[in-house]
Amino acid sequence: MLCKGTNIKLKLAYDGTDFSGWQRQAGNIRTVQGLVEDALEKSHKKPVALTGSGRTDTGVHAAAQVANFYTSIQSMEPCRFVPALNSLLPRDIRVLEAEKTHDDFHARFDARFRTYRYFFIPGFKALPWEQRYAWRLNRCPSLIKLNEYARLLRGEMDFTAFAIPGDKSKSRHRYIFSASFFPDGNKLVFEISANAFLWKMVRSIAGTLLRFEEKGFSPDYLREVLDSRNRHLTGPTAPAEGLFLWNINYDFS
Amino acid sequence: MLCKGTNIKLKLAYDGTDFSGWQRQAGNIRTVQGLVEDALEKSHKKPVALTGSGRTDTGVHAAAQVANFYTSIQSMEPCRFVPALNSLLPRDIRVLEAEKTHDDFHARFDARFRTYRYFFIPGFKALPWEQRYAWRLNRCPSLIKLNEYARLLRGEMDFTAFAIPGDKSKSRHRYIFSASFFPDGNKLVFEISANAFLWKMVRSIAGTLLRFEEKGFSPDYLREVLDSRNRHLTGPTAPAEGLFLWNINYDFS
Repeated sequence: MLCKGTNIKLKLAYDGTDFSGWQRQAGNIRTVQGLVEDALEKSHKKPVALTGSGRTDTGVHAAAQVANFYTSIQSMEPCRFVPALNSLLPRDIRVLEAEKTHDDFHARFDARFRTYRYFFIPGFKALPWEQRYAWRLNRCPSLIKLNEYARLLRGEMDFTAFAIPGDKSKSRHRYIFSASFFPDGNKLVFEISANAFLWKMVRSIAGTLLRFEEKGFSPDYLREVLDSRNRHLTGPTAPAEGLFLWNINYDFS
Repeated sequence: MLCKGTNIKLKLAYDGTDFSGWQRQAGNIRTVQGLVEDALEKSHKKPVALTGSGRTDTGVHAAAQVANFYTSIQSMEPCRFVPALNSLLPRDIRVLEAEKTHDDFHARFDARFRTYRYFFIPGFKALPWEQRYAWRLNRCPSLIKLNEYARLLRGEMDFTAFAIPGDKSKSRHRYIFSASFFPDGNKLVFEISANAFLWKMVRSIAGTLLRFEEKGFSPDYLREVLDSRNRHLTGPTAPAEGLFLWNINYDFS
């Protein structure tokens, strides 16, 4: 039997602004996976592979990304990886938790549902320290209207209308458990949970619902667009800076 | 009679991280006053001087800096300076309010008291997006002990013990109206209000009180140090990143 070592589950937060996304890339490209793997290599004195729950795109933030790796270091309490890795990481990535998990745990395959939050600041009211973390709107959209659209997204359906052109997913069916808009201080939050998302799907939905609300389109029209599976009928992709990977759930079944 | 134009009072917020402080400097130095004056020059098509309530140092933030300037543009509602200037300013400076004020209003000389907040994050619990805006501590200090020191600061006294060496102020007497520590989410806040502050006084006080708490010094010892007027007996200067100019009050008398 091949001994892979102890399986460690990490919870990570990062400010995506200065990263070319999660996934390690060749060359001197600054990615989250790349920098955490570099820190793991320094502490283990050999390369260590890190598996994330999924990729986040350039500029997208994470409040609680989950990842796992196998460690050969048996002498250390797993929670000690929190200070050990943080001391090796730049301050725009922080390890929040580290714990031992079962041998077969896989951060991506075992994820039951993923939750994202998209933050808007209406009326150009963003303070300097909020600018990097929200989409700054020049108007105040109607929460009620936005929620009339959002409730139509719930359930299992084909989300081709929110896929990027040429999306290569085997199936574009996804199960959305919840989707709603709510206020949070001077911000407007769109929270959406699903078993999985197509590439750029959350930002396509966020950009589309805002556009439809601005144009005064009816909820029935959104239903037609979903049925059409035609990306040309949906709206623009919202900018990366407003999007946070918010939570990964492994318990639900 | 010389007509100076209409006197406009601005309220500004800025993220001090990437500025060499408030005060305009010669050359290509990035300062808040310099950039706001540049924006005023663009909108007025001639140089316009901006008077701030006081200087903030390199790296110090402001939630509500106050400044004033005289405008020759009579055709514009004063509140329109908010979007006009924001469209010319980088996103780490935001104009929050603009209003007409009386001809003699002077942002510095008329300020009655100034309030600063210093933010600490205990136990290295800072999230990536909080790193630029707080002093990250490797421990959890006692709020009760810190407040035992803070209450000794109130009143009028000679603050030479918290002045920088060689401070050239005519008098080092200042009147502290309030000084206290309180929790705010995962942060610890030190709020202090005074008629005015010596250069780096707030950061000297914050650094000293934290050091005294760590060492277990008694409140009586702080009283002795204040009486000694000896900067060598006080602690280190807390880093700029935790400090926010929080409010300038013009109404109190």
